[in-house]
Amino acid sequence: MRAAVLRKGSIVVDTVPDPVLEQGQVLVRSMACGICGSDLHAAKFTRQFVDLAARTGGRWGMDPDRDVVFGHEFCCEVVEYGPNTPARLKPGTPVVSMPLTLSGQTVQGIGYSNDIAGGFAQYMPLADRMLLPVPNGLSPVHAALTEPIAVGWHAVQSARLDQDDVPLVVGCGPVGLAVIAGLAIRGVHPIIAADYSPARRALALKMGADIVVNPAAASPYETWKTTATPDGFDGSRYAQLFGLGPKLRPAVIFECVGVPGVIQQIMEGAPASARIVVVGVCMETDRFEPFFGIVKQLNVQFVLAYTKEEFAESLSHIAEGRVNVAPLVTGTVGLDGVSVAFAELGNPEKHAKIIVDPWT
Amino acid sequence: MRAAVLRKGSIVVDTVPDPVLEQGQVLVRSMACGICGSDLHAAKFTRQFVDLAARTGGRWGMDPDRDVVFGHEFCCEVVEYGPNTPARLKPGTPVVSMPLTLSGQTVQGIGYSNDIAGGFAQYMPLADRMLLPVPNGLSPVHAALTEPIAVGWHAVQSARLDQDDVPLVVGCGPVGLAVIAGLAIRGVHPIIAADYSPARRALALKMGADIVVNPAAASPYETWKTTATPDGFDGSRYAQLFGLGPKLRPAVIFECVGVPGVIQQIMEGAPASARIVVVGVCMETDRFEPFFGIVKQLNVQFVLAYTKEEFAESLSHIAEGRVNVAPLVTGTVGLDGVSVAFAELGNPEKHAKIIVDPWT
Repeated sequence: MRAAVLRKGSIVVDTVPDPVLEQGQVLVRSMACGICGSDLHAAKFTRQFVDLAARTGGRWGMDPDRDVVFGHEFCCEVVEYGPNTPARLKPGTPVVSMPLTLSGQTVQGIGYSNDIAGGFAQYMPLADRMLLPVPNGLSPVHAALTEPIAVGWHAVQSARLDQDDVPLVVGCGPVGLAVIAGLAIRGVHPIIAADYSPARRALALKMGADIVVNPAAASPYETWKTTATPDGFDGSRYAQLFGLGPKLRPAVIFECVGVPGVIQQIMEGAPASARIVVVGVCMETDRFEPFFGIVKQLNVQFVLAYTKEEFAESLSHIAEGRVNVAPLVTGTVGLDGVSVAFAELGNPEKHAKIIVDPWT
Repeated sequence: MRAAVLRKGSIVVDTVPDPVLEQGQVLVRSMACGICGSDLHAAKFTRQFVDLAARTGGRWGMDPDRDVVFGHEFCCEVVEYGPNTPARLKPGTPVVSMPLTLSGQTVQGIGYSNDIAGGFAQYMPLADRMLLPVPNGLSPVHAALTEPIAVGWHAVQSARLDQDDVPLVVGCGPVGLAVIAGLAIRGVHPIIAADYSPARRALALKMGADIVVNPAAASPYETWKTTATPDGFDGSRYAQLFGLGPKLRPAVIFECVGVPGVIQQIMEGAPASARIVVVGVCMETDRFEPFFGIVKQLNVQFVLAYTKEEFAESLSHIAEGRVNVAPLVTGTVGLDGVSVAFAELGNPEKHAKIIVDPWT
């Protein structure tokens, strides 16, 4: 089969071996697969990515000197079943799945493996019991957004939200936009979102943000304060001990940038008792001053991926129109276009999500 | 009145002005006041302490070039009431209070102020409505432990504990010991505690720890794993997605050291989904790798001080014997002994808590 292959730091199109099915596996044909920011990072800093994954006990044990086929945000269709595997869904059924498969009793990740090609190849061996049929009428391109939407939905579900909370989303790349979509589904308003890029701020509004901020022009944290406390009260817990001053609405700040310095910046800007949800994936050593966290009694919840239930709910959110993913898709390419797409995704004015169709 | 005064980096005994009472204030006679680790830090690094407090919006706006009288862990007795202040408690009543007073509508901290002397002076002007009478028979020395016990009780209350949780306390100084006491009151077992000092480990057992670990001999995190999962299962959430392997008991790790590097060490050692409660007060810039938090979906709750209710509950825990604070008190000194006590508290084998009696 054909695939876009990461080979010695470059994306090339080549022929790779067809999957050989085991019991419990299903051969699927990849119809649409999104390019993720983690793919860009793993292509550029492959060795660091692998080393860090190993140190943190992750499952992405790929060898940077061998070929890898990325792609973990996919929609596919059922082709055939492995040995002794009941045909639960008819061949031709469009499906999505969490990017995992099962080999015997071992769970294997899809998208960062030397041995199992991801969605930038034409076929994959998925786990029978992970397949979710895509409801009629939803296009493969939109169904492929299930995975990134699930990342945002999980972050929102992990935030222990209350209707009184006022959320601030820092960074409106695909992760931040998915968080905004999740917040809009949960109905927690006003949603404040910050990004330096005009195009990203426009997308944030389309995904459900109520107020967008350009951090070059105004502090997102000041905007939060003005919005949540129109009288400018500083919310000191000392004053509240004595019953002085009004009660502040709680802040929930989503870190969706993933570069060093942003967590400290949020800890400095956050109001007292804020909850910070770290969704951005920073792979470097970072610096912070714990005292800001202590004085303000901040809570920092790191999140990753999603549960099985949140993944299924995300498909349903898209299929039933609770989120309109169409604005997120800013381009589609065939395998020959993957390399250029990786380069172009660096420009936030031009792109949010590019979808790969490995058959064109 | 006499007081132990921090003057140009040294503790000296001198005469300072008597408090002048305002409306809503009560003059109290300090009978016993504990020396806190923060006092040692503020004495040694006064300027950094003040600068950091200012940057984080704290209320400790003291001028390092002027005299300061420390002391915020006190038991006192009522002497007389300010103008137009109803005499709610009889003169001679032993009381404790959060280390705050009210001047007009402004809350002022006690213990790190140039203008209001703390408990290492003979008298203080406390806020009428903050006084809690000490139940009959509890000694001033033990009642003075209300404040540090409240720090531990607040940390435990902030941890959202469940009976299934297995706590690990990293560091058994006064803060860690108070956390252990709080966990024992909550009845969450087994309580695992780690400290390099044999004397501190012995105290940890007295305060309610079930298992103590010397980190020089064994990893506290391995001890946690062995205790919480006797079969050595690694607790991967990927395996659990497929229903493989048993469910782990949740880890709640209390950081009670407060020096750079400990938060990262805990993030590396913690099992997946652990909650980390940061009670230790690190006043320097720290380094950490967010990716450990992300991969394990860790939660970090920074805490400080206590609520009014937690402070009152802590007095009641001591007075009703739910915690025996006697082992924590390893020395008592008069004002002349404060300077030496500050030096000796650096040795964990010798001391946990030293109580100052400003009348001897």
